[in-house]
Amino acid sequence: MAAYGTTSREMNIMVSYADYLLMWLRRQGITRIFGNPGTTELPLVEALARQSEIEYVVGIHETAVCAMADGLARLSRKIQVVSLHAAPGLGNAEAMIYNAAFSHSPLLLLIGQQDTRLRYERPFLGAPLKDLISPLVLDVWDITEPDHMLRSMRQAWARLQVEPSGPVALIVPMNILSQPVPGDEDALWLAPVVPVKMENAPSEEITREFLSLLAKPSPKALVVGDRAVQNPEVLPALSWIAHYGHCDVFGEPFATQLSFLPWDDACYKGRLPRAERDLSRCLSPYRYVVGLGTEMFRVFTRGEDHLPWWDQASIIQIDSDVRYFHYAPGTASILAPLDSFIFSVANRLPDAIKHEPTAPVEAGERPRRLETNHVGEEFWRSLASLIPPDMIVVDESISAQSALLRHLQRQYPATYYAQAGGSLGWGIGAAVGMCFQNSKPVMAIVGDGSALFGLYALWTAAHYQLPVRVLIYDNHGYQILKDQIRDNAKAHELLDIRQPPIHWPSILKGLSCSVLESALPCSPQDLALGWQQFAGQKGPSVWVIHEKI
Amino acid sequence: MAAYGTTSREMNIMVSYADYLLMWLRRQGITRIFGNPGTTELPLVEALARQSEIEYVVGIHETAVCAMADGLARLSRKIQVVSLHAAPGLGNAEAMIYNAAFSHSPLLLLIGQQDTRLRYERPFLGAPLKDLISPLVLDVWDITEPDHMLRSMRQAWARLQVEPSGPVALIVPMNILSQPVPGDEDALWLAPVVPVKMENAPSEEITREFLSLLAKPSPKALVVGDRAVQNPEVLPALSWIAHYGHCDVFGEPFATQLSFLPWDDACYKGRLPRAERDLSRCLSPYRYVVGLGTEMFRVFTRGEDHLPWWDQASIIQIDSDVRYFHYAPGTASILAPLDSFIFSVANRLPDAIKHEPTAPVEAGERPRRLETNHVGEEFWRSLASLIPPDMIVVDESISAQSALLRHLQRQYPATYYAQAGGSLGWGIGAAVGMCFQNSKPVMAIVGDGSALFGLYALWTAAHYQLPVRVLIYDNHGYQILKDQIRDNAKAHELLDIRQPPIHWPSILKGLSCSVLESALPCSPQDLALGWQQFAGQKGPSVWVIHEKI
Ligand SMILES: Cc1ncc(C[n+]2csc(CCOP(=O)(O)OP(=O)(O)O)c2C)c(N)n1
Ligand SMILES: Cc1ncc(C[n+]2csc(CCOP(=O)(O)OP(=O)(O)O)c2C)c(N)n1
Repeated sequence: MAAYGTTSREMNIMVSYADYLLMWLRRQGITRIFGNPGTTELPLVEALARQSEIEYVVGIHETAVCAMADGLARLSRKIQVVSLHAAPGLGNAEAMIYNAAFSHSPLLLLIGQQDTRLRYERPFLGAPLKDLISPLVLDVWDITEPDHMLRSMRQAWARLQVEPSGPVALIVPMNILSQPVPGDEDALWLAPVVPVKMENAPSEEITREFLSLLAKPSPKALVVGDRAVQNPEVLPALSWIAHYGHCDVFGEPFATQLSFLPWDDACYKGRLPRAERDLSRCLSPYRYVVGLGTEMFRVFTRGEDHLPWWDQASIIQIDSDVRYFHYAPGTASILAPLDSFIFSVANRLPDAIKHEPTAPVEAGERPRRLETNHVGEEFWRSLASLIPPDMIVVDESISAQSALLRHLQRQYPATYYAQAGGSLGWGIGAAVGMCFQNSKPVMAIVGDGSALFGLYALWTAAHYQLPVRVLIYDNHGYQILKDQIRDNAKAHELLDIRQPPIHWPSILKGLSCSVLESALPCSPQDLALGWQQFAGQKGPSVWVIHEKI
Repeated sequence: MAAYGTTSREMNIMVSYADYLLMWLRRQGITRIFGNPGTTELPLVEALARQSEIEYVVGIHETAVCAMADGLARLSRKIQVVSLHAAPGLGNAEAMIYNAAFSHSPLLLLIGQQDTRLRYERPFLGAPLKDLISPLVLDVWDITEPDHMLRSMRQAWARLQVEPSGPVALIVPMNILSQPVPGDEDALWLAPVVPVKMENAPSEEITREFLSLLAKPSPKALVVGDRAVQNPEVLPALSWIAHYGHCDVFGEPFATQLSFLPWDDACYKGRLPRAERDLSRCLSPYRYVVGLGTEMFRVFTRGEDHLPWWDQASIIQIDSDVRYFHYAPGTASILAPLDSFIFSVANRLPDAIKHEPTAPVEAGERPRRLETNHVGEEFWRSLASLIPPDMIVVDESISAQSALLRHLQRQYPATYYAQAGGSLGWGIGAAVGMCFQNSKPVMAIVGDGSALFGLYALWTAAHYQLPVRVLIYDNHGYQILKDQIRDNAKAHELLDIRQPPIHWPSILKGLSCSVLESALPCSPQDLALGWQQFAGQKGPSVWVIHEKI
């Protein structure tokens, strides 16, 4: 590896822009590229073959490739690199890029493009990639000159480091990748990108105003978003704020994390509901609603009548990105780095607020919304008791999610990740990707319908013998859709994918996974035995749980 | 079914816009909708459950759904309807929509959208669908008012009927679909769309000019595009023109059809090569190059030097769509309906041209480009002799394609279809879709890498017990990519997907298919026996041919 500032001339070797790209990425700390290759990626693959520091992790489908990178990015909070093949590869990856945008996963997408010299001739494998990808990413660099390569890499890298992050795309033409870097070009440097950080703290004035709000006796709700708790160290500070300020705390409606306060904190009231009407009803008792890095108005269904609860409440939004102020009805919006805002408020609390905090945090049952039992309620209860507390749970359990979350106990922060955007097929790949980090055991819990969309990641898991555990909850189809149109047997028939049944063990063995099957109901003892077998495998291990037909 | 012009008031029932959409589609001759459902599609599914004339064909992945519709659209030359779930479903389908654009398949894409009343609140399942789909389709109608539903349907339908066709998109919000059609609304009618036809013939002047060009003694090439021969009745007329005009005839480089002249016509010189340099070399002997509904300059790789052969030749383009004149270097461009142009020229030939046509058409071997043998050459030869002449062959054979085409004899028109855009995963689905037409036997020939991208269509084939035949040519990976970087063992390793091997029979049985395996080399006798078993199955049948490792 050449030293910082060494030009290719000084190194005295001919390197291509693809080689250069890899050297540069390596210097930023990248050790692997996830990809599925095509002709436009061959110069990159050849460069990968010329070095040994960056590994090329191949997936046999772009859904798998992108979900793996996304999972690892979310777990590590480090940028992951994905290589996609022109319009076909990008097309297949779009649904996962859409998810990554909602979970703010820092992904650098390298999208292969045809030879620039054919740009205006509708060549085979040419496509308006910038138009295709723009709606899904934070930014796109559509490279058309060799000279743009390094500049755009630096810019993309800088952009990825500003929170909230997300996917960004670099469109890289194959002829530029294989061009030699001019040896006498001093403008080509290997300088690392200086990480962008928002070091500023909220102003004294704002902090004081917020503290006086907390001191008010009126009922207050604190809605905490995924982005506010990405650093789990804020949790005790949030708890401090909630107790001193007598606030009820909610998680945002489409949260992809589980911990918004320390486990079992009495102030935590659960996640906000996802239907506008329920959300309104839930927040209407409060005079002040404080949103912390949240999309609290991201709902799923519109209430038939618009309940204008927010005309009676003051809504204060605190966020590090102005984009989120635009669509929510705020009374006041405070632009601040989320961590420093939380810490600087918490630090001032005992001095600033004279009244007593609410009762100290008690261990015990978390308050729960009343919900009808899931048909597999007993199963989820037993299963949850088997999952070790430090095991990472990747959740794409769809209609079983609320039952799972009723029982899943997560004392360790950052051991739970849910799918963000709504594109199915993410769970298995995300879990496989997380196994590359190699720290904690990882398990995905996925619906059978979802599993079908993302199964191929298991091939990569088998290739690397990654110890991923996948539980497929097989309720024989798309239950969540049926739940939405109850009492319509004819429509349920149309939604059915039962005939023929999917022969899970056969398919999974075809992908070289260990497979275990159980049918519900299943005694806790049998489940415990099953768990041992399931968790004890060396490589990828899948447990298919069949609901009774 | 209500009579033409009957309003919902006269029918005296409450119908929703979804019901109306179905009635309208039915009236246009639609009998099935291919789809994978989500929440935004539920109003459509409920409406489908209220009627029995349109079938809902479910696929367990959008690649399958879209490839099935595309295959059937290409075979039947009739509009097919696809229902996709918002951004996730659209995302997963994009690669296949990209293919459909290049094969000009008439597809009506119904893309589900969130409740319009949540439009500006970044709701779950909301997305800028119009931006996402625009680069891939002929046109998009982004419906935001109930009142737009019928108007946009009519416009989309009209657009689909103008050749060259392709995919068009209708973005349909779920709340509008479930809204009742106002009973007193007279503007809602069931009038059929009058098909758009270009009935005009080329002018007398143009025809005469073209005839005098044909009469010239200089060497002439006729490049025939897919779109020119979509009506196979033009083939004898084209042959007539070629022989009278002493023209050499070529197929366009990325042709998706096989017949550009009647089988074994001596004037046929094969398809044009796909690299710019080879294409230039191939066409440089000609003084006149006539393109008929073709993208003859759609190449794959750029020659290192730009050979300006076209400065010496006159290039005459005849097309029914002005868009194709923009990017090709034409000397003269004639806008005309392709069929009528061909017929009106052919009809005038014996009178207009006094010299003799070239030697009469001889049966015999078609002239071939010299090409190195494929490792499976003998296999392809034997296989080709087993495929019945009226069997439809769907070709996604990738690196084996030229070997396959050296041996495949197709006397029947419209019995061969190749993948168009370059997105893998199309072949199996396209063949399954064609089986819905139920006229001729259908077989897909796909590479193992390609098969992985599109396997799930077999579930739908099993569901309907469709007699699709799929031959998977298993060369254990991505051979065409390796071929492009020969002598780079290290890079070949990176491209490898051999470890672990895909256990094809296991996966395929998991999808309820009959499976047969053979390893090469395989004697013609054994292949013939294998064929009987393979072709004799009732439902979906897959034959996996393993190349020697
Ligand atoms: C890529 C994609 N296609 C389709 C959908 C629509 N969809 C939403 S939920 C669902 C069913 C999920 O089934 P499963 O994973 O088995 O969970 P269940 O509903 O049975 O609990 C479907 C198909 C989607 N969200 N994403
Ligand atoms: C959706 C998609 N992803 C990736 C590619 C890149 N690609 C082009 S050819 C190829 C390999 C095809 O393998 P196979 O079907 O086995 O045919 P072979 O090359 O072995 O003949 C790949 C992955 C593509 N064209 N489309």
